[in-house]
Amino acid sequence: MSVAVSPLAPKKYAKLPPLDGIRIATAEAGIKYRNRTDLLLMVFDKGTEVAGVFTRTKCPSAPVDLCRQNLGGGKAGALVVNSGNANAFTGKKGRETTSLTARAAAAAAACGEGEVFLASTGVIGEPLDAGKFSHLLKDMAADASADRWTDAGKAIMTTDTYPKYATATVRLGDAEVTINGIAKGAGMVAPDMATMLSFIATDAPLAAPVLQQLLSAGTRTSFNAITVDSDTSTSDTLLLFATGAAEKRGAPRIADPKDPRLTPFRRALNRMLKNLALQVVRDGEGARKQVEVTVTGAKSARSARRIALSIANSPLVKTAVAGEDANWGRVVMAVGKAGEPADRDRLSVWFGDIRVARDGERDPDYSEAATSAYMKKDEVRIRADIGLGRGKATVWTCDLTKAYVEINGDYRS
Amino acid sequence: MSVAVSPLAPKKYAKLPPLDGIRIATAEAGIKYRNRTDLLLMVFDKGTEVAGVFTRTKCPSAPVDLCRQNLGGGKAGALVVNSGNANAFTGKKGRETTSLTARAAAAAAACGEGEVFLASTGVIGEPLDAGKFSHLLKDMAADASADRWTDAGKAIMTTDTYPKYATATVRLGDAEVTINGIAKGAGMVAPDMATMLSFIATDAPLAAPVLQQLLSAGTRTSFNAITVDSDTSTSDTLLLFATGAAEKRGAPRIADPKDPRLTPFRRALNRMLKNLALQVVRDGEGARKQVEVTVTGAKSARSARRIALSIANSPLVKTAVAGEDANWGRVVMAVGKAGEPADRDRLSVWFGDIRVARDGERDPDYSEAATSAYMKKDEVRIRADIGLGRGKATVWTCDLTKAYVEINGDYRS
Repeated sequence: MSVAVSPLAPKKYAKLPPLDGIRIATAEAGIKYRNRTDLLLMVFDKGTEVAGVFTRTKCPSAPVDLCRQNLGGGKAGALVVNSGNANAFTGKKGRETTSLTARAAAAAAACGEGEVFLASTGVIGEPLDAGKFSHLLKDMAADASADRWTDAGKAIMTTDTYPKYATATVRLGDAEVTINGIAKGAGMVAPDMATMLSFIATDAPLAAPVLQQLLSAGTRTSFNAITVDSDTSTSDTLLLFATGAAEKRGAPRIADPKDPRLTPFRRALNRMLKNLALQVVRDGEGARKQVEVTVTGAKSARSARRIALSIANSPLVKTAVAGEDANWGRVVMAVGKAGEPADRDRLSVWFGDIRVARDGERDPDYSEAATSAYMKKDEVRIRADIGLGRGKATVWTCDLTKAYVEINGDYRS
Repeated sequence: MSVAVSPLAPKKYAKLPPLDGIRIATAEAGIKYRNRTDLLLMVFDKGTEVAGVFTRTKCPSAPVDLCRQNLGGGKAGALVVNSGNANAFTGKKGRETTSLTARAAAAAAACGEGEVFLASTGVIGEPLDAGKFSHLLKDMAADASADRWTDAGKAIMTTDTYPKYATATVRLGDAEVTINGIAKGAGMVAPDMATMLSFIATDAPLAAPVLQQLLSAGTRTSFNAITVDSDTSTSDTLLLFATGAAEKRGAPRIADPKDPRLTPFRRALNRMLKNLALQVVRDGEGARKQVEVTVTGAKSARSARRIALSIANSPLVKTAVAGEDANWGRVVMAVGKAGEPADRDRLSVWFGDIRVARDGERDPDYSEAATSAYMKKDEVRIRADIGLGRGKATVWTCDLTKAYVEINGDYRS
């Protein structure tokens, strides 16, 4: 099977600076992969606050259960992530593994067990033996250092064809604070599905409820607005940590989500969430094109979002994009099947800036040649105006190629 | 594009007998295809009753609008079907085409315009010029004969790799009546949106309300329980015609849907609906395997159906089946994402009769070798027991192969 890097990979990877209050170590535990790191430990200084957003599946993995439980405390001492095995649908054994891992991590990082956060990604249903890696955590904690963000991004990859990084520096009050983020999504080697994991950290002194508000709001238009294949992982996890170390440099401690001094931070975080989310889409299994779907003129924003997802998840739309075919009839089909208010005779559709249909008919000025040329781009924008209201939404996806089927149909053979 | 016949095609096609009261003609109008028939005319004797079920899309084609309107009268004089152009999203021009066609068909078949039913299938958004074929209807009506069901099935094909036929003979009162059915499908097939196109006819003397009750009830567990790619056509149309000609041979005229004499007819019709629906699935674009998904133990039948469709529409489940991979982790994932009540720790999953997971874990007795052997079959059954209630549902789909992407990436080119 091909392990070529996605043609949509960034030309240059962001270089993440050290973040005060966070030390990082990675290791080759050999959980499933050979000759690569598959274990990540982050150790957080005392007082680090945390927020999280998780998969909405009804069958979450054991680590997701544990994170949700520990989020209640709002404090983080350690993060342990393994790739190669998702510890999902592993029953009682899965819970034993998370308990054992949390205990070992707490001992290694000298924090409470309730301050440990876990994420696992890889195959589902295979028992994950904590004994395979929990003994490594002590030495990793001793060895951990602040300058290993690049290693961190690599250790959490599964079928990703490239690691995903983002960093930003932004003013908080009179001080500068830094935000670092890593993510993993869907790629090409073995595991079972496109679990999305992302870990973002900052030295800003923000309280857990502030982090949670920022994260929940920002996710709506970033990680929750992307779709590779409409399938939902058992393990999707997005965590945001704030060490507060920038307080020493004069950054204000913020406990109120409505504090106006948060504005630049919120903007930077939202940009980063979108950046990382798009990196995941651009590394979607078999992806050759990024697709942005915008719906305007729907009855409501919620309705617009549903229609946009109906378009973005339509296999017929996605294969048409793969075939560089400006097949707007399939966009109309996907609008129609969304089940949301829509009136065929008011509908307009654009590929890029080219309006191909309006008022229920093909646009008389529509040039097939110009549209075909547009469809050859790496990034394709589709817009549908419903003509009924002011609801608007944008989501992102990738095309559906033969490589997707190959990756997901052939992996055991 | 490959035009090889699906490996799941019937070994032998049903041979449909003439039906009293129906005459058939087909023609090569050259609407899109060359060197094949693309136009079907059925002429019904006076007094033929009709019922229909249609796509639930919000953007139906012009012929669907016309059929819905004419169904109110309950009488059919002519059916005109063309392949190669769906006359969907064609605005005012589309309505002009249906009007012109209905007028020409009414003149040709000597019936009222309100007794004409139309269906169009093929590309969306291209204007369909009635002038290209409506002039042929007069000669077709003159030439029409009762023994052309085989031709009828062929003329309505688009990307189908084989025509779809079914026939049954059944007692109604003291007489025998016949039911004939044809269908076309391939892509854009999703439940709750009726079918692709299917036309069923009988010589039984059944009133339109009886036909409608039989058809609506039978569709729920047949055409509305299949999905090829979760996409919904603008044009799905299923019509049931009853000429009543068997009355002369002593068949009772039935006007009450609860008439107990209907039982054998209902059973035969339901079998035929399921038979035709499965033929459509087995000719799903790129299909190599038929997949039956049964969900048991859900909170309700409705919940079971939603979970079953989540499994049947999951690209990861469908590619796993294509890869002959008993990847039950993806079934769990699809249960989880359905949004219906489910408890990971009560979930059990079977491939065929092999239980691969139970109570939230891999079944300890599960044999990978036996399951892999099972996955090589043409017909794969997946069952998930939710362990919460008594809700049950079965749906059918096909696998997702590279050929699907190939067919749909190249369709317009």
